[in-house]
Order: sequence, then structure tokens, then C-alpha cells
Amino acid sequence: MYDIIEHKRDGRALSPEEISYFVQGYVAGEIPDYQASALLMAIFLRGMDARETAALTLAMEHSGDVVDLSGLEGIKVDKHSTGGVGDKTSLAVVPIVASLGVPVAKMSGRGLGHTGGTLDKLESIPGLTTGIDRERFFHIVREHGAAIIGQTGNLVPADKLIYALRDVTATVDSIPLIASSIMSKKLAAGSDRILLDVKTGSGAFMKDLDAAIDLARAMVSIGEEAGRETVALITNMNRPLGHAIGNALEVIEVVETLRGHGPEDLARECCALAAEMLVLGERASTIDEGRALAEQAIANGSAFRKLCEIVAAQGGDVGYLEDRSRFGRDAIAHEVAAPRDGYLGAIDTTAVGTASVELGAGREKKDDPIDHLAGITLLKNRGDAVRAGETVAVLHTADAEHLSRALPTFQAALTFQENEPEPEPLLFARVTARGVERFG
Amino acid sequence: MYDIIEHKRDGRALSPEEISYFVQGYVAGEIPDYQASALLMAIFLRGMDARETAALTLAMEHSGDVVDLSGLEGIKVDKHSTGGVGDKTSLAVVPIVASLGVPVAKMSGRGLGHTGGTLDKLESIPGLTTGIDRERFFHIVREHGAAIIGQTGNLVPADKLIYALRDVTATVDSIPLIASSIMSKKLAAGSDRILLDVKTGSGAFMKDLDAAIDLARAMVSIGEEAGRETVALITNMNRPLGHAIGNALEVIEVVETLRGHGPEDLARECCALAAEMLVLGERASTIDEGRALAEQAIANGSAFRKLCEIVAAQGGDVGYLEDRSRFGRDAIAHEVAAPRDGYLGAIDTTAVGTASVELGAGREKKDDPIDHLAGITLLKNRGDAVRAGETVAVLHTADAEHLSRALPTFQAALTFQENEPEPEPLLFARVTARGVERFG
Repeated sequence: MYDIIEHKRDGRALSPEEISYFVQGYVAGEIPDYQASALLMAIFLRGMDARETAALTLAMEHSGDVVDLSGLEGIKVDKHSTGGVGDKTSLAVVPIVASLGVPVAKMSGRGLGHTGGTLDKLESIPGLTTGIDRERFFHIVREHGAAIIGQTGNLVPADKLIYALRDVTATVDSIPLIASSIMSKKLAAGSDRILLDVKTGSGAFMKDLDAAIDLARAMVSIGEEAGRETVALITNMNRPLGHAIGNALEVIEVVETLRGHGPEDLARECCALAAEMLVLGERASTIDEGRALAEQAIANGSAFRKLCEIVAAQGGDVGYLEDRSRFGRDAIAHEVAAPRDGYLGAIDTTAVGTASVELGAGREKKDDPIDHLAGITLLKNRGDAVRAGETVAVLHTADAEHLSRALPTFQAALTFQENEPEPEPLLFARVTARGVERFG
Repeated sequence: MYDIIEHKRDGRALSPEEISYFVQGYVAGEIPDYQASALLMAIFLRGMDARETAALTLAMEHSGDVVDLSGLEGIKVDKHSTGGVGDKTSLAVVPIVASLGVPVAKMSGRGLGHTGGTLDKLESIPGLTTGIDRERFFHIVREHGAAIIGQTGNLVPADKLIYALRDVTATVDSIPLIASSIMSKKLAAGSDRILLDVKTGSGAFMKDLDAAIDLARAMVSIGEEAGRETVALITNMNRPLGHAIGNALEVIEVVETLRGHGPEDLARECCALAAEMLVLGERASTIDEGRALAEQAIANGSAFRKLCEIVAAQGGDVGYLEDRSRFGRDAIAHEVAAPRDGYLGAIDTTAVGTASVELGAGREKKDDPIDHLAGITLLKNRGDAVRAGETVAVLHTADAEHLSRALPTFQAALTFQENEPEPEPLLFARVTARGVERFG
């Protein structure tokens, strides 16, 4: 291990054998934390090339169980988002592509920091469970074309250990380490092809477009090395996606979107993501064709019916999706008004996500309970004209004390200005094994 | 601590408060090893400026006891060598300068790796002890002008802890970390002024002259920041110093040198070092004057008498210094012959030191016993002409098995060649607060 640290310290590329010695030894408890953290800092500062990053990812993937989806027919396509605020796209995209015959056997996560988690959102539907065993998971995917569950089995224990160490040694923000962490879990989850939604902007982990593209390239390259076709879209997280932030609020917005009257930005982004998955799943031969199919699945109601089917299969009460008023509302709905005439300018989207967590929609500590009804409804978003006193957002919470913490956080996150801000694209770039295509 | 790691990771200078938070917290066991090692790797790769290095040194110095020498009269001058093979200069230089009225209250160390230690050498004199308490130490210095003892008290516990961690995380070879480790111990040992002998070459920790100069500059700068005038000589360790390597063998050679018939290189280097200490101690006003005084102290016998005085005060049997044959000899004296006519060329001096350890002169594990009579007598050194079959060295050991290990190590360390190698200076450079003066 000493030699491995020394090699990386001196800027040399580590061999696959060295990398797997480290990962296996660390998971086995044979390599102490202090050597692992020295290596992680050396990786942070010296970097890793594409081969090293792929070797690290494969070693991590095989540090525990891997899911074998070969018993399921068709090209299984997975989707992963690096996390954003108001990002409920998985809940819409999975039923869209499943309704068009591309199977999705998806393992999702819970909210983390200022971002929400698909599992938390789904569980706001009464009766629905995401803790489903392997056999039932496969059964649902086989019968209904998709399922969204929590992680089962001992997947990628190396990632949990390494991430915990990175978290306390200032070695989180390293592209090879982030890429291998994400991709090891995607590979272990067993799908054939992978769509990555890499968010960039004030609400994303990657604040900077070029860094987001670098991360996407690293992940696409890992996918290719591992023989799993991988495509990444770089999407805009300088503003929350859609109007709703919070668990039940986002489920309701997904239903609106699948019924054809969701927010325009959300609908467009969902169709763009679905189009990529349809091409990856060989259901469409071009992105344009994929997008048209996705729009059709929304327009003819099949995507919404598929969502209901999946929710029902996972035990959820579909009545809530048909009549969203049944979700109810939190006791407090506090309106936030624009302080002046003008435009809503830059948004500190991370702070908006934090405000939502403070309202009760997320966890500040691991075992905090979640208020599924808490969150934020944005009536205005970046670039919208406003008048002094006009309501721009409603904060929902069950607890006045939560509101008193969240309100200043939320208010400080918004900028109002005289001039209309420069419009920004929804999609910045598309990264495939063939290269980077920038939009707009 | 997280923020401190992050600052250094990003290449920022740490404040004295951040540095002392780390050192105190680590010594107190409040900062875990894995955070300390991440910081050390960040320091290794990002470096530290002069102020940070000084702050680290001072924080380490004050992590435990510090010796107060103010009760001793005069300007106390310390000497430190970064370690070499055959480096017995302290044993000669301390009595030289003490005989001239400059007090030396010296704490020395034991052999480490391929290098010998002053304490081990001294203890080859029957009766002599280096484990002396503070009160008696001061008494000997006051009465006789010098004493050389082992470390007493809990000096610089931070160095022991940090060094142990560096040793297993590939963060040893960092100039700010080496400089702060050495200088924290020198500052804690309490002398007013410090002479550093920074060795460079095949037998030194610093193989490269420029790196040795950088280390010397870092240490001189720390000394100045701490208000202790510090000078460094950069000396040649591309060949062993003198003829003798091994504990009693080196003591005998010191006696020969102080009686005026030691090897020329050793005598010159001892006088050069003594001259610096005499200037630092304000006993001489120029280096040339200091050198002349040192040569005089040898010629008139006062330096040898001072050595006898110190040895006697520490309980040693002075009869051995007067009649060196009393030390005796190891059972085996194996002669190594030159394989060809020509010159002794490049020497892997580290390997020569290792061969001496293998003969029994040093420890391979911490508690190994030492054979005080074991070691190597060089009849030829780098640059000397040799004839095929001529004896170039004698290996001394009590154990044939030791010889069978050491002999190939020693033989592989020597190069014989047709042409005379380029001569090299004994002293490469002198580093003071005013700058670097290169010789030759």
C-alpha cells in the first residue's frame, strides 16, 4: 500500500492490480484509514487518467454484490441524475420509456443535502413501498416494464467506506472519485445502457459547466470501458426544475406533466431525457424520433397509465394520482412576494433546496422524519417578470418554527432586478463516446 | 480540521492558528490519523511557505517539554547532522569547541537505518552512559563545557506521532516536513544558536545538492524566525567520511583525529564545522580565525584532553582513549580486495552503511543489540588508485553469518574503473540567513 501511495503521490498512473489491491484491502479492513486517506488526497491532487478511473470503478463495482438483470428481456436502460432541486424527472421519464417498451429496473436513492431523492418522493404516495426484494422487483419489471426501488443487497460496499472517508478528509470534489462512485453503483445495478443527467449550476454539485462536462466525459468513458453504452446530458440547474420542490408536491407535478399540462421546462427536459433512453434502448433510431414518441406517450395518456400501473404494482394507492387533492396540504402556506417591479434574476438554487429541507421536505440528519407535504411552490422562476407585491412562491410546512428558519434562507436565494436576465438553455451539452456536442 | 485540509489541498497558506490547532489536536488524540494523513499528503504535494514551516516547527516544539538552558552561562551552540556514513564529526567537534570555551549541551540520537548514531558510538567506551538526568547534564556542561546525552523528558511528542504517520503514508520526503521535524527538536533542546551539517550524496537522505540546499534554507529560515541564529554547511556524502564505519572503530578514529593524525578529509571537515560553531559562539570573528583556533586545539592537545574530560564526567573509562588497543577486535576481519588495477570510482554510500549494519554495527529492528566492535575499515576511498588484489577494506564482525550477508552488499557498493574520477569538494555550500554561498 505504501508503494501505491508513493506512485500516485509522484503522479504515476496506478495499475489495475494496484487499484484493486487498494479497494479489496480497504473493504477487508486490512488497509488502515490513514493510508487510504493519504492515497485519496494524492488522487485528488494528482488526478487519475481514464484507464485508472475505469479500473477503480470496476474494482469498486465488484467489492460487493452485483445485480444480474440478464433474466429480464430487452435492453435495460438506467438513468442517473447527479442531483438537483425540483428534479423529479425520473418519476416521469421511467413511465414514459416503459410505456414505449424499454424496460427500466431502477434503484434510486434518498434525499441528500439540498437535493431530493426519488425514493422519498415516491413514498409520499400512500401504500407505496420501495423496499422490495429482488424476486418481486424482477417480477414487476417483467410484468409492467419498470420498477423503482431502494438498493437491495450489499451493493458496492467500497463506495460507502470510501465516500465516508472522503467526506471527512476534503477529498469529495475530485472528478475521478465522483465518477467512479456514481458509475460503480450504476454498473453494479446491472442495466445494459446508462443515461446520465449531469446537472450544472447554482443548485448542482458541479457549479461550473466545464467541470460538469469533464465529469460526464469521465463517466461516459468508464461506461464504455465496462462495455455499457453510456450517454450524458448536461442540464441547467441555475434554477429549480419545474414549479414544485418537495415530495408530494413533486409527485403531483409529475402527474400534471404526464397528463400534458406540466411546466414547460420540466416537460421539455423529461422528453429530452426519455428520447435518449429510447435511442439507447433501440426503440427509436434518432433523438428526434425518441422525443416525438415521448411526446406522443404523454399526449395519448399511455405514460400516465404506466405510472399508475407501476405505482399500483409497488402497493401505492393510485387514487391519489387520479385525485391529487387527496394528498392534502400542510397547515402553513406562506406566500413570498416580489419586493419590486422587474425580473426574477439569479437564483441560489442550492439555498432554495436548503430552504425546502428546512421546511421539512428533507433530512438534516440521517434519521430525521420527512414531512411529505412540505416544500416550495414556485409561481415565478428565473427570467420571469414580476410586479412589486406579487406572490412569487408559496412555502409549505407543518411547523411555524420551520418556516422561520426557511423563510430567510429562501428570500436570500432570490435576486430581483430591473432588466430581464439573459435567457439560458435547458440543455447545455450532450456527451457520448464520440465526443461533446454543445447546444445553444 | 476539515477546513484546514481543504485550505492546504487548494494550495492556500495555513495560518499559525490553523497549524497549531492541527498539532495540538493531533497530539491530544482529538484529530484522527486519517485526517492528519490527508493533510500531510496535501502538504507534501502543495508545499508550505517559510512562515507556515516556521509556525509548524514552533507548534511542534511546544507540543511537549522544552529545555531551558538559560541557567548555563555563555552562548550555547548546538550541532546537528542530517546523517551520513562514517560521520563521527560530533565526537570530535564538541570537544574542540568546548576546549575553546563555547559550551555545548547536546542531545544526540541513536543509529537510524544505514547511518550511525552518536549515542551508540559513545557507548562503545566502557562505563560511559548517555542516560543522564537534567541536573547532572547541566552540572557536566557547567564544569566541563560540554556533555552529550540521550533525549530527556517528553521532547516534541508531535514529531514522534507525525513522523510515525509520515513513515506509513509516503509523506517523509517533504522539505517543510523534514525541516520542521529536525528544527522542532533542535529548538526544544534549548541552545541559542545552531549549526546544521546537511549531507548530500549517495549516503545521505538528500541525494541531490539542490534539494539539500533547499532543506538547509528551510531550516535556516526556521531558526531565524525562532530567533536562533542558524547556519548550515552542505557537505559531501558521496563517500563515507574518514576510514572507519562502526561504533568503537569511529571512536578510535576520533581520538586519532584529535591527536593530529586522523584521516585528512575527516580532520578538515571537523575543523570546518568547529570553525562555524566558534563563530556562532562568538569565540572567533571569522571562519578562518575559527578554523585556525580549531587546528590549534588539536595541535596543542587541548581538544583531546577535553574529550577525555567529557568521557570521564559521563562515567567512561578514559584508559580506552589513551590505549585504543584495549577496545579489542571482532573475531572476523575479512579483507576485500580490488578486482582490477585502476581507481575506486562511485560508491553507493548508503549500501556501505547498510553493510556495516549487517555486520552488527547497527540495528535492523528497534531492540536489536549492537556489536560495538563491528564495522568497516576503508583503506581506500573514492578517487584512490588501486592495484588488482590490493586490500581496499576490512569488514569486522563477530559472526560469519553476518559477514555472508554484508559482503555482497559491500562489494556491490563499490565501482572500480580505469580512469581517475572527477574529484569532488568536501564542502558544497554554506547557507545562512543572508543567502547561499557555493564552494568549488
